[in-house]
Amino acid sequence: MSLTRIHNLSISLDGFATGEPQSADAPFGHAGERLHEWMFGTRFWEAGGSAGVDDAFAQRHSCGIGAEIMGANKFGPPGWASDPDWKGWWGPNPPFHSPTFVLTHHPRPSMEMEGGTTFHFLDAEPAEALEAARAAADGQDVRIGGGATVVRDFLAAGLVDHMHLVQVPIVLGRGVRIWDGLEALEDAFDVEAVSSPSGVTHLTFTRKAVV
Amino acid sequence: MSLTRIHNLSISLDGFATGEPQSADAPFGHAGERLHEWMFGTRFWEAGGSAGVDDAFAQRHSCGIGAEIMGANKFGPPGWASDPDWKGWWGPNPPFHSPTFVLTHHPRPSMEMEGGTTFHFLDAEPAEALEAARAAADGQDVRIGGGATVVRDFLAAGLVDHMHLVQVPIVLGRGVRIWDGLEALEDAFDVEAVSSPSGVTHLTFTRKAVV
Repeated sequence: MSLTRIHNLSISLDGFATGEPQSADAPFGHAGERLHEWMFGTRFWEAGGSAGVDDAFAQRHSCGIGAEIMGANKFGPPGWASDPDWKGWWGPNPPFHSPTFVLTHHPRPSMEMEGGTTFHFLDAEPAEALEAARAAADGQDVRIGGGATVVRDFLAAGLVDHMHLVQVPIVLGRGVRIWDGLEALEDAFDVEAVSSPSGVTHLTFTRKAVV
Repeated sequence: MSLTRIHNLSISLDGFATGEPQSADAPFGHAGERLHEWMFGTRFWEAGGSAGVDDAFAQRHSCGIGAEIMGANKFGPPGWASDPDWKGWWGPNPPFHSPTFVLTHHPRPSMEMEGGTTFHFLDAEPAEALEAARAAADGQDVRIGGGATVVRDFLAAGLVDHMHLVQVPIVLGRGVRIWDGLEALEDAFDVEAVSSPSGVTHLTFTRKAVV
């Protein structure tokens, strides 16, 4: 069975997955890279990194994934849709290595990149986008790659089977909050928390089995 | 040196320390007692309870405390100020066992209760209230007892030396949020997180030493 999964989505103590304002120079606004430093310290990110609990969670990002869905705000800075040459933040060989569906109100032709990533552009609701990604995933799982708005939309639509959040001990105060509109989310999930020596806390939401 | 401390303040994943609406029948609104179940399972709460990490943190509530400051919303349900017979939620022997200062715009005469608790009623700003509590604490520490609004006010005024929060794995969606207006709180504190087998995560904020 092909699952819908979220991995390595970092949030502040107050639940913001990005700061503000987002721009080409500051993709996460005033948060900078503070939400992701925990990951830069792992072997998942580079050789010689840590191989403990942070790495174990980080490595889950890619295993068994056949397609990704991301929001327009992850693909580029505000205004990218009016730049015909914009091909994402990641250079010629993006780290997705699979069909990657970008949700946007301004679709453009698909772009085949190096390393197995092909960007497809869809103006679609979550369920419809998931159907397209599932068909492209060749039996493997689909990752919802973020940002926070897209993750919230998929959670609200009941389409997520597993979510991994990483809570970083900073208070951002402003940005895009993951929790808004998700009252009683725990009813549908088994929730676990495990803190790491690095200072972050990993939260996993795993859809409860239907008995 | 007498410190200002916060203990056992439970919050949801989305940062709410109480639900809504608060009333005499539901002091924590739609949150019910879900934010505090972790504590009911400890030896701090009753004999035979757990004596692990949850209990270790819970027990810190009382040690070395000489006075408490609480907000009007902790002392009673909306409207208590117009009930001359209201003496708090806790019966004749409240669990504070020390001078306890209630911040209210409707002060009344002090009330001496059993077990060492005397309620004093102050219409005062945080710094002024802290001065009064400090004087009454006889060299011991002062506890800020909540609710969330009062805690936020004391944090924003830079008056807190140590704070212990307990994050419970539920999404409340609405209520009073602890984090609002506290951007970059971590600059002044060393922050630690430790998750417990019970499912909650203990967060401690300890004021950084001035070098």
